Amino acid sequence: MAKTLGALIFPGYELLDMFGPLEMFGMMGEEVEIRMVAQTSDPVASRQGPQTVVDDAFGDRDSYDMLLIPGGPGTRPEVDNPVLIDWIKAMTPKAALTMTVCTGSALLARTGLIDGKRATSNKAAFKWVMEQGPKVDWIKQARWCEDGAIMTSSGVSAGMDMALAAIAREYSAADAERVANSTEYDWKQDPDWDPFAKIHGLV
Amino acid sequence: MAKTLGALIFPGYELLDMFGPLEMFGMMGEEVEIRMVAQTSDPVASRQGPQTVVDDAFGDRDSYDMLLIPGGPGTRPEVDNPVLIDWIKAMTPKAALTMTVCTGSALLARTGLIDGKRATSNKAAFKWVMEQGPKVDWIKQARWCEDGAIMTSSGVSAGMDMALAAIAREYSAADAERVANSTEYDWKQDPDWDPFAKIHGLV
Repeated sequence: MAKTLGALIFPGYELLDMFGPLEMFGMMGEEVEIRMVAQTSDPVASRQGPQTVVDDAFGDRDSYDMLLIPGGPGTRPEVDNPVLIDWIKAMTPKAALTMTVCTGSALLARTGLIDGKRATSNKAAFKWVMEQGPKVDWIKQARWCEDGAIMTSSGVSAGMDMALAAIAREYSAADAERVANSTEYDWKQDPDWDPFAKIHGLV
Repeated sequence: MAKTLGALIFPGYELLDMFGPLEMFGMMGEEVEIRMVAQTSDPVASRQGPQTVVDDAFGDRDSYDMLLIPGGPGTRPEVDNPVLIDWIKAMTPKAALTMTVCTGSALLARTGLIDGKRATSNKAAFKWVMEQGPKVDWIKQARWCEDGAIMTSSGVSAGMDMALAAIAREYSAADAERVANSTEYDWKQDPDWDPFAKIHGLV
């Protein structure tokens, strides 16, 4: 049976944070059912303009097998949206895997669920993200971090490397390799590969 | 004044072909106005499931400054859709830059506008793509090709490298570098970088 992937969107989400990982999971064919989830059923505009149709509003489903939480400038107001933070807090413990990309880590941090856990985020926004979860074990230099059922990635493009690692974890390494080759993607398989931490002055 | 980017979508378009490049162009802020264009005004479902809202139906605008044409399994029926092929044929000469990703090259080839021009496409679908434009100068090993006002890229992820090269061309190299660093993207700046041609047995 297909695993459900609940992909959370909100106004001002970052396009590639979302659709990079969904490209990779979409290549698993009938193994994964992607559901776009938002607070209400109205289409949601990304940071870059394009709007996405909502499959499920909050409350339409009790749980998803996997969750994907993107970043983008929309996270700045959303960290103070209790409806959205409460939804993440309720759904994360029911998912086998919760993934965040970029400043999506700030939304997950606000739930308190990753206090004491290793996590990373966008390099240019790192200071602000750390403030959203002072008890999180923030890792400045990492392409992505894995801590139990939680995977967090660095900025934007890093979500694709995390997604492939997640496919290797949830399905197989052969599947991840096949998806990377099909999408002609230069997969960074080393979670410690992160030149951008230095470029953005974090290390 | 913002340049308009007409981003063509059709049922079964490939998510990352579209939203990888749009992430990059979106980072140009008010310099670029992204418009999602389709044959009709109904939302369009991607190969992976997520549906995108249409900004402009065919005929709503006379021209765009730039065009982006993605690939995906949807191109297989669309090469035989005269309404879509005629739209590409009418709009391409009016655009300063037309970009295709993956099997989107097959759609552009069907117009006849790139006969005699250098072009590339998805490595796994190369044979089928070549059949859609027997007079095109198909380049098997290339991350992307540039021939005058036409840029064509290899499969899926290659669209992001092409988009950054297009930003360097239409704006500046500094802008492209800034966008790559902001999106934490390992930009392949060499159009000849293409290990996937060998992986997929083309060379």
